[in-house]
Amino acid sequence: MASTLGELAVRFGLELSGDPGLAIKAIAPLMSATPGTLTFCSNAKYRRLLASTRATAVVIAREMLPDCPVAALISPHPYAAYARIAAAMHPRPAVVGGVAQGASIVPGAIIPASAWVGANAVIGAGAVIGERCFIGPNSVIEEGARLGDECRLQASVTICHHVIVGARCVFKPGCVVGSDGFGFAPAPDGFVKVPHLGSVRLGDDVEVGSNTTIDRGTIEDTVIDDGVKLDNQVQVGHNCQIGAHSMIAGCVGISGSTIIGRRCMIGGAVGIVGHLEIGDDVVVTGYSLVTHSLPGPGTYSSGMPAIQSIDWRRTVARLRRLDALERRLARLERGGDDAEQETDE
Amino acid sequence: MASTLGELAVRFGLELSGDPGLAIKAIAPLMSATPGTLTFCSNAKYRRLLASTRATAVVIAREMLPDCPVAALISPHPYAAYARIAAAMHPRPAVVGGVAQGASIVPGAIIPASAWVGANAVIGAGAVIGERCFIGPNSVIEEGARLGDECRLQASVTICHHVIVGARCVFKPGCVVGSDGFGFAPAPDGFVKVPHLGSVRLGDDVEVGSNTTIDRGTIEDTVIDDGVKLDNQVQVGHNCQIGAHSMIAGCVGISGSTIIGRRCMIGGAVGIVGHLEIGDDVVVTGYSLVTHSLPGPGTYSSGMPAIQSIDWRRTVARLRRLDALERRLARLERGGDDAEQETDE
Amino acid sequence: MASTLGELAVRFGLELSGDPGLAIKAIAPLMSATPGTLTFCSNAKYRRLLASTRATAVVIAREMLPDCPVAALISPHPYAAYARIAAAMHPRPAVVGGVAQGASIVPGAIIPASAWVGANAVIGAGAVIGERCFIGPNSVIEEGARLGDECRLQASVTICHHVIVGARCVFKPGCVVGSDGFGFAPAPDGFVKVPHLGSVRLGDDVEVGSNTTIDRGTIEDTVIDDGVKLDNQVQVGHNCQIGAHSMIAGCVGISGSTIIGRRCMIGGAVGIVGHLEIGDDVVVTGYSLVTHSLPGPGTYSSGMPAIQSIDWRRTVARLRRLDALERRLARLERGGDDAEQETDE
Repeated sequence: MASTLGELAVRFGLELSGDPGLAIKAIAPLMSATPGTLTFCSNAKYRRLLASTRATAVVIAREMLPDCPVAALISPHPYAAYARIAAAMHPRPAVVGGVAQGASIVPGAIIPASAWVGANAVIGAGAVIGERCFIGPNSVIEEGARLGDECRLQASVTICHHVIVGARCVFKPGCVVGSDGFGFAPAPDGFVKVPHLGSVRLGDDVEVGSNTTIDRGTIEDTVIDDGVKLDNQVQVGHNCQIGAHSMIAGCVGISGSTIIGRRCMIGGAVGIVGHLEIGDDVVVTGYSLVTHSLPGPGTYSSGMPAIQSIDWRRTVARLRRLDALERRLARLERGGDDAEQETDE
Repeated sequence: MASTLGELAVRFGLELSGDPGLAIKAIAPLMSATPGTLTFCSNAKYRRLLASTRATAVVIAREMLPDCPVAALISPHPYAAYARIAAAMHPRPAVVGGVAQGASIVPGAIIPASAWVGANAVIGAGAVIGERCFIGPNSVIEEGARLGDECRLQASVTICHHVIVGARCVFKPGCVVGSDGFGFAPAPDGFVKVPHLGSVRLGDDVEVGSNTTIDRGTIEDTVIDDGVKLDNQVQVGHNCQIGAHSMIAGCVGISGSTIIGRRCMIGGAVGIVGHLEIGDDVVVTGYSLVTHSLPGPGTYSSGMPAIQSIDWRRTVARLRRLDALERRLARLERGGDDAEQETDE
Repeated sequence: MASTLGELAVRFGLELSGDPGLAIKAIAPLMSATPGTLTFCSNAKYRRLLASTRATAVVIAREMLPDCPVAALISPHPYAAYARIAAAMHPRPAVVGGVAQGASIVPGAIIPASAWVGANAVIGAGAVIGERCFIGPNSVIEEGARLGDECRLQASVTICHHVIVGARCVFKPGCVVGSDGFGFAPAPDGFVKVPHLGSVRLGDDVEVGSNTTIDRGTIEDTVIDDGVKLDNQVQVGHNCQIGAHSMIAGCVGISGSTIIGRRCMIGGAVGIVGHLEIGDDVVVTGYSLVTHSLPGPGTYSSGMPAIQSIDWRRTVARLRRLDALERRLARLERGGDDAEQETDE
C-alpha cells in the first residue's frame, strides 16, 4: 500500500516535518532503509544511527527531530504510531472461508461459511467456531470448545475440550489451552489424581504465544481476561485468574490458583508461587521469584545480575560467611570479649 | 452420577456429619456451589469462606468442622477424598476402539481392536500399541515405539522411535518423548554431534505434561520410573534417571545424566546441573539451582523472594560491597590499624 | 557395521593399545558392555568404573590407559572420537524421496523428487524444499518458506511463512520457527500490536531443539548463524542475532533485539535481557541472568547454588539485614558513637 507522507500524517494524526508529497512505498529498518521507505526510531540507544539513515522519512518523538536528517512524522508515542502505519501498509489478507483437504470435522461441530479450516486440522463434536476464524493447519479443537469471531490459530494449536474463547484471540503455533493441570492430592498410599472439572475461559483480544500452556481448572475455570497477552513458553497453572490487559513475558511460570490483577507486567522467566494475589498495575522485573502476595501498584524484583564468574563465586562464598560476619561484628560491639553468647537468630 | 451423602460416606470410607439421605448431584466450587452439590475445603487459607457456602455438603478435615454450616464428609486427607469422589462422579468415558478418518498407520504396526487412533494420527512401522490406548488426534508415534495398555495421548503428542512406555501413562498435548538430546563433543575443529543410540523407557502410571520434553539416551536409556509425574514444560536431558513416584513441577530443567531418587518433589522452575545424584525423598523448593549432588532425605533451596525493586537494587549493591565490609571488619578487629595485610580469600 | 579395532584406529586416526584384529560389532555403555562391543570413558567421574568393563575395547584419553583392563583406542578428545565411530557404526538411513499418505501440498510448492514429505505434513504455497530433505509427519511449512538441502524436520515441526533455512539443519519435534514475537507498543489507549514484517534466517548446520521457539523479526530478520545449536525449550525473541557456532542450552530465554557473538556457550535456563550485545567466546553459566552487555571473551555467572532450606532462609534473612550490618560497622569505625549520621546510599 503506497501513500504520501502527508496522507499518513493526516490518517494517523501525526505532525509532519518535511514535504507532504513524498511517496512512501514500504517500511524498512533504520539502517538498511532505502529511498521511498518509512522507518522509525523510538529507542534512545539507536538515536546516533538516525544521521545515516537513507529512509525517506522516520517516525520519531519530537526530541529526536534535531538529529533527523530526513522528513519526519512526529508522535509522542513513535513506536505505536509506527506500528499502526506498518499494520495499515501490510494488512493481513482477509480470511477466506472453506475447509482444506485433510481437515477432519466431526459431525455436529458448528463452523460458519466465513471460517477457514486448514489442512489436517481436527475439530471435535459440539465445537463451535466463530465467524471469520482462521483454524491453521494441524490444529486440534477438542469437543465442546467454543471460539468467538475472528480468532486466529496459526498452526498446530491445541484447544482442549469445552474451552471458551472470546473474539479476536490469537494462538501461535504449538500452544495448548485447557489441558489438565498438575493436580495430585497426597494420601497415605500415594498421590491421588485430582479430576479437572473446570475449563479455561479466555476474554476478547487475548494472545497466546508459541508453545505456551494454560491448564484448565480443577473445579472452577482458569480465567484469562480481555486483552491479556502471553508471550511464548509461558505456563499458567490450573485455577489461575489473569486480569485484563496484563502482559506476561516469555518463559514465565505461574503456579496454580494465583490471581493476577489488571494491567500487570510480568517480566521474562518470572516464577510465581501458587495461591497468591498480585494486585493491579504490578510490575515484576525479569527472572524474579514471587513468593508472597504483592499489593499493587508496585514494582518488584529479585533477579540477580550476572557478573564475572570469579567474582560471583566469591560473592557466594561471602554470602555463606555472613553468619560469621555478624558474630564477629557483635563481638566487637560488646567490646571484643571472646565469650560467644548470642544464639543464632 | 447422583448419589446420597450416606452412600458416598460408605463407599469412600469417610465419617459423615449430617443427614445421610441428602442427595448429591454434582461437584461444585466452594463459593459458587448451589444446593445439591458437594464441595471441599482443604486449604486453611480458604477456611473463612466455609461459612458462606451454599453447597449441600463439604469434604473437610475434622478441625474445620466447627466452621462448617452444612453437612460434611470428614477425612484426614480431605483433598484426596474429594478427588476420589469427583473422579467417581465424573468418570472418563471408556475408550472405544477404532481408527479415525485421516489416521496414517504404516503396515506392520500392531494396534489392538480395543485401541482408538484419532484423526490424522501417524503410527510408524513396527510400533506396538497396548489394549484400550487412546491415541489422540495429530499425535505421532514413530517406528518401533511401544505403548503399554490404557495409555492416553491426548493430542499432538510425539513419541519418538523405539521409546518404551508402560501401562496407564498419560501424555498431554505437545509433549515430546525421545528426541535426540543436546550432545556435542568438543574437538579441535568444532563440535561433533553425538549419536543418540539409547532410547527412553517410561514405567507404569507416568504422566507427562503439556509441551514437556524428554530426551533419549546417548548410549544407555533415559529412564522414568513408575508413577513419576512431570508437569508442563519440563525438560529432561539425555541419560537421566528419575526414581519412582517423584513429582517434577512445571518448567523444571534437568541436565543430562542426572539421577533423581524415589519420591522426590522438585518445585517449579528448578534447574538441575548434569551428572548429579539426588537421593530419595529430596525436596527442592521452587526456582532453586542444584549444582551439587544432594543426599536424601532433605529439603534444599536457593530461590530468592522478590521484594520492592528499589530495595532489591540496594541489596544487590550491598552484596557487591561485602568484600569491602569484610575488610573493614577485619581492620577493626586488628584494632583499627590501617595496614591492609590480609589477602583476599 | 562390524569392524576390527585396527580398522577403526586407521579410519579415525587413533592410537591403538591392544590387538588390532579384535572384532567390534556394536557400541555399548561402559557398565553393560559385553564382549564384541566398543565403549568409551571420557569423564573422570566414571574412571573408577573402567576396571570392571566387559567391553572388548574402550575409547579413552592416554591418562586413563593405566586403568584400562582391555584394549583401547586413544585420543586426546575421546568423546569426539567415540561420537565419530558411533555415528559411522549407526548411520542414519538415507532419505528416500516421496510423499506420504495424507500429506497436503499446495500447488506451487517446489519439492524435489529426492525429498520425503511425511504423513499429514502440510506445505504452503510457494514453499521451496531442498534436495534430500526429510519433512517428518504432521509438520507444517507455511507459505514462502525455504529449506536448504538435507534438512531434517523430525515430526510436528512448524516453519512459519517466508522463513529461510540453510542446509543440513535439524529441527526436533514441536519446535516453532518464525512465529510473531511479543511486540506491543505502549500508547495512551493501551498497547498497539507491532506487525512482524521481518522473518527468520537460519544458516547451515543449525540445530533447533524440541519445543524451542524462534520469533521472526519486527522489521529486520532474526538471524541464527551457521552451526548454532539450540537445545530444547529455548526461546529466542524477535530481531535477535546469534553468531556462528554458539551453543544455547535448554530452557534459555533470550529477549528481543539481543546480539550474541560467535562460539558463545550459554548455560541452561539463562535469561538474557533485550537489546544487549554479548561478545564472541562468552560463556554464561547456567541459571544466570544477563542484564548488561558482556564483552567477550569471558565467563559470567549469577546462579545461586541450592543449600539446605533452613540455611537458605537464614541467608535470605541476613541479606535483608545487610543494611543494618553496614550501619553497625560504620558506627564502630566512628568509635562507637551513637549518632547515626551517614545517609543511606
